Amino acid sequence: MSGRVAILMGSKSDSGIMQGASDTLAQFGISCEVKVISAHRTPDAAIEFAKGAEAAGFDAVIAGASGAAHLPGIIAALTPLPVIGVPIKSATLNGMDSLLSIVQMPSGVPVATVGIDGAKNAGILAAQIISVKYPDMRQKIVDFKAKQAENIIG
Amino acid sequence: MSGRVAILMGSKSDSGIMQGASDTLAQFGISCEVKVISAHRTPDAAIEFAKGAEAAGFDAVIAGASGAAHLPGIIAALTPLPVIGVPIKSATLNGMDSLLSIVQMPSGVPVATVGIDGAKNAGILAAQIISVKYPDMRQKIVDFKAKQAENIIG
Amino acid sequence: MSGRVAILMGSKSDSGIMQGASDTLAQFGISCEVKVISAHRTPDAAIEFAKGAEAAGFDAVIAGASGAAHLPGIIAALTPLPVIGVPIKSATLNGMDSLLSIVQMPSGVPVATVGIDGAKNAGILAAQIISVKYPDMRQKIVDFKAKQAENIIG
Amino acid sequence: MSGRVAILMGSKSDSGIMQGASDTLAQFGISCEVKVISAHRTPDAAIEFAKGAEAAGFDAVIAGASGAAHLPGIIAALTPLPVIGVPIKSATLNGMDSLLSIVQMPSGVPVATVGIDGAKNAGILAAQIISVKYPDMRQKIVDFKAKQAENIIG
Amino acid sequence: MSGRVAILMGSKSDSGIMQGASDTLAQFGISCEVKVISAHRTPDAAIEFAKGAEAAGFDAVIAGASGAAHLPGIIAALTPLPVIGVPIKSATLNGMDSLLSIVQMPSGVPVATVGIDGAKNAGILAAQIISVKYPDMRQKIVDFKAKQAENIIG
Amino acid sequence: MSGRVAILMGSKSDSGIMQGASDTLAQFGISCEVKVISAHRTPDAAIEFAKGAEAAGFDAVIAGASGAAHLPGIIAALTPLPVIGVPIKSATLNGMDSLLSIVQMPSGVPVATVGIDGAKNAGILAAQIISVKYPDMRQKIVDFKAKQAENIIG
Amino acid sequence: MSGRVAILMGSKSDSGIMQGASDTLAQFGISCEVKVISAHRTPDAAIEFAKGAEAAGFDAVIAGASGAAHLPGIIAALTPLPVIGVPIKSATLNGMDSLLSIVQMPSGVPVATVGIDGAKNAGILAAQIISVKYPDMRQKIVDFKAKQAENIIG
Amino acid sequence: MSGRVAILMGSKSDSGIMQGASDTLAQFGISCEVKVISAHRTPDAAIEFAKGAEAAGFDAVIAGASGAAHLPGIIAALTPLPVIGVPIKSATLNGMDSLLSIVQMPSGVPVATVGIDGAKNAGILAAQIISVKYPDMRQKIVDFKAKQAENIIG
Repeated sequence: MSGRVAILMGSKSDSGIMQGASDTLAQFGISCEVKVISAHRTPDAAIEFAKGAEAAGFDAVIAGASGAAHLPGIIAALTPLPVIGVPIKSATLNGMDSLLSIVQMPSGVPVATVGIDGAKNAGILAAQIISVKYPDMRQKIVDFKAKQAENIIG
Repeated sequence: MSGRVAILMGSKSDSGIMQGASDTLAQFGISCEVKVISAHRTPDAAIEFAKGAEAAGFDAVIAGASGAAHLPGIIAALTPLPVIGVPIKSATLNGMDSLLSIVQMPSGVPVATVGIDGAKNAGILAAQIISVKYPDMRQKIVDFKAKQAENIIG
Repeated sequence: MSGRVAILMGSKSDSGIMQGASDTLAQFGISCEVKVISAHRTPDAAIEFAKGAEAAGFDAVIAGASGAAHLPGIIAALTPLPVIGVPIKSATLNGMDSLLSIVQMPSGVPVATVGIDGAKNAGILAAQIISVKYPDMRQKIVDFKAKQAENIIG
Repeated sequence: MSGRVAILMGSKSDSGIMQGASDTLAQFGISCEVKVISAHRTPDAAIEFAKGAEAAGFDAVIAGASGAAHLPGIIAALTPLPVIGVPIKSATLNGMDSLLSIVQMPSGVPVATVGIDGAKNAGILAAQIISVKYPDMRQKIVDFKAKQAENIIG
Repeated sequence: MSGRVAILMGSKSDSGIMQGASDTLAQFGISCEVKVISAHRTPDAAIEFAKGAEAAGFDAVIAGASGAAHLPGIIAALTPLPVIGVPIKSATLNGMDSLLSIVQMPSGVPVATVGIDGAKNAGILAAQIISVKYPDMRQKIVDFKAKQAENIIG
Repeated sequence: MSGRVAILMGSKSDSGIMQGASDTLAQFGISCEVKVISAHRTPDAAIEFAKGAEAAGFDAVIAGASGAAHLPGIIAALTPLPVIGVPIKSATLNGMDSLLSIVQMPSGVPVATVGIDGAKNAGILAAQIISVKYPDMRQKIVDFKAKQAENIIG
Repeated sequence: MSGRVAILMGSKSDSGIMQGASDTLAQFGISCEVKVISAHRTPDAAIEFAKGAEAAGFDAVIAGASGAAHLPGIIAALTPLPVIGVPIKSATLNGMDSLLSIVQMPSGVPVATVGIDGAKNAGILAAQIISVKYPDMRQKIVDFKAKQAENIIG
Repeated sequence: MSGRVAILMGSKSDSGIMQGASDTLAQFGISCEVKVISAHRTPDAAIEFAKGAEAAGFDAVIAGASGAAHLPGIIAALTPLPVIGVPIKSATLNGMDSLLSIVQMPSGVPVATVGIDGAKNAGILAAQIISVKYPDMRQKIVDFKAKQAENIIG
């Protein structure tokens, strides 16, 4: 296995969507650890995780949240690792609140945001980031894209 | 003086708007402390402040931020005190991003949100909250409302 | 019991959502009174209630409404008490109309707004406001937050 | 003169826009009375006005407000007269908040809403309403439309 | 019967919603005529109707439409009568397109717009407009509002 | 010259933007006629123009309007010619109202909509439509695209 | 048969909606070719198609896509033919993302955009474009509009 | 120098904003190459660049665009490298169109999106991605964050 990614989500109810990220990482042979951590309801766990994420050997963090979705931003504030944010479709505003809460970060603390409910794309983006280091991962991405094209054209 | 309120803002550039809160608190004779603390750029200071806010004797916290405005929510996650959030008009989306990032908090961690750039109203709301404890503050609010009506009718 | 809160809603159809507020207050041992009062269809009842709310011994008012949601604002106009507004998801615009009608109050008359359908958070916020006066309520909030964190982490 | 219309606005700062209504009514020879009354800052004046509007001999009420614009709705709640609402462009959300706060009234209490900053159209609509009673006003509207067409085609 | 109102709709599929207008007019004892006329698919019928509406003895026109909802505006362009527009919830944008297409009329040609799917309110507004001429209709509105308040309070 | 296009606008104030269409048509050697015609303020002129547009020898119509922008749709309702709609940026809602009023046409009556203030693109689209008939126009478009690419790359 | 149109869609899941375009073209006797081509997942196929579309004898291209809907714009970048874009309702944002991604093209490269899910209208627009060349197609459009009016009026 | 990043923008007018990315990369000692390439106006240049980007030795690509902002997505379709998208504030819709056109990518082709006009954050994110490979870059990010905090606290 090459690379190691943490997948965080603000609530157990996000696990259906976030499964898309872990499945994708598995497909690329990337090791991952999945945790339910809430920026608001378990802030100490979120802070502790973020501060230790680099030392724990992660290459990147994927964080999904909905509504006033602060989890990706708070993690990004406390780690030098690249953080990928997944806005999760919310019950009332279709995820527009989640999207804006994640993508509109202030200057100095980026979150690499994917589309609403885009957990699968978060997994692919993590693989692309890891491929900067591991040439075999780059080849896997090239293969993935070729296979994907075949599936469309059928 | 009765009551003590902390006023936080994510950036020095928010001080023009947040002045409305400190001026209003002064008008009601409420003591306040103003700090520039960013959830994203000074997360440790934000965490430390929030964890110590109750012991420091504050009755409430007012926090203003713009864009992916996480400051009020993070403070609310880490203190039992009531937290008032002021969405500040953002450069690109007119504050709609700030508003949704502050008001759409998950179940369990409320932020008492006022209107975009509503720092003055945040000050009044803090006074109303403090008036639950101090009867003289209640009277000041009654007087404030009466005077306000006079000014409109002229 | 410490503290007393009124829960108002603009229509009987809002009672499913607003139950979240009364359940939460009960959980905190706060006494509450629930009323269906419409700013538009029973304006006299709304006015009478608001004018008498302080004398009736309420510490705070929670008001939920949807669409052109004026109830929280009208109550706030007529009482010095802190008023918490709950924007209720509307049939056509997902509650964006309710949210803007409640949160964008003019300078001088704040409404402490929570998220769309955030009645439970309104109850917690009321407890936080009451805790300014009652130290035992502060402890209950600390306990509530600790238990909430445990439930997430499981 | 035929017909009598009240023009209300929530703030003196709305008078520039609302002038469009009074000028238009003057052009149609309709008598009007202009008042600054705020649903939130002078609620008693608003209530008193609304309850007495019919007896005072008004045929219709035009009310302009911005942000959480409750004035037209509150007046409509308290009078049987037709109420025309003018959403005024707000400082932060371009009047989308004003529009939704005015037009999305609950079933049972309509407000005849015109476009954002559409005070002139509110005046014309008042004339059209009055023309239901006064045939000479109908003719004035026909003439107004003819002249307007000429001005466009030039 | 006092007063006569035309109810137009752009498509047969709008009849479920627009029934709210005809039911309400019937309740107030106002005569009405219901027609399916599309500004876009039967433009000649729309033009002919609008040009003849005053001569046909109508006091007001209610027009409902969805999407790029032009029917109320086109009728208003071609008749001096007051025109009430009902934005109907659209399949894709929840009626926001219908609302903006109806309410944002240019200066000179107002449409009295009610809320999305607010056909019942359109009926009440028509009654209020007619009541400018017929005193008995005014009394019916007063009675309607009283009964409505009773129903809420139960 | 090959091809003939009518350019309509709802108000003289749109002429600055709509100039982009006439300049572009001139650049492609397409004859054009420019008229100020309002769907709402000069409805008879709009109807007469639309009904006669095909007989007048036009190949396509470009219509720009803002707010509740009905002009392109009404023209499209009354002519078999292809109609290109230009949503013009509005004073209050940035042209979102104009866009939705033009693009969300009901099934059966399309308007070929370009971007907000996209009058130049409307001109190019008209040339592309005309090029279906005239091979030399096709070549001009190919040349235009090549030159445009050169200008970017510089 | 007169005229030949390509119908492209970004995903097989769009075929239900895009069927509206092919059915309409069939109704007008226009030959069409349907292809699933994704701007993002089969970019080479999209590029190849676009570059060869004119030589392949197509008169126009209809392209439907959802979300960050780039297909119509990329085709338009690479062919001189008129391109009609169909924004398809997306899973999370109701097609507002699709609409803006298609209609807001930069100056120089128009896409003739129809309403969300407006594939049938895309077919009619293609027929109108083709009618610029073929007089019999013009007559078919006139007939179509007449029949459509009859169906409404019943 | 460690790492090499391409910075693309759709128009010369985006260079003021995109300067934030090149300045930031320079600050981190990352080599960069800046190009004006339009997905729509120079599609061949965009395709050629994207297909050769990996072989040219780039570690990541930053692409900024506005309106129907397709550049980041098209590059991402044609390269296995991680692509960072910068939505640029547009003239009419404040960058909401740019944001949705960039972030809402279909499953299979992610774009790492930053906030509107967030070019500086795009540079930081590129440094974070590169730091997966280069340990000294990781240290620079840690230092950058520490210095940033100092500047806020002053």
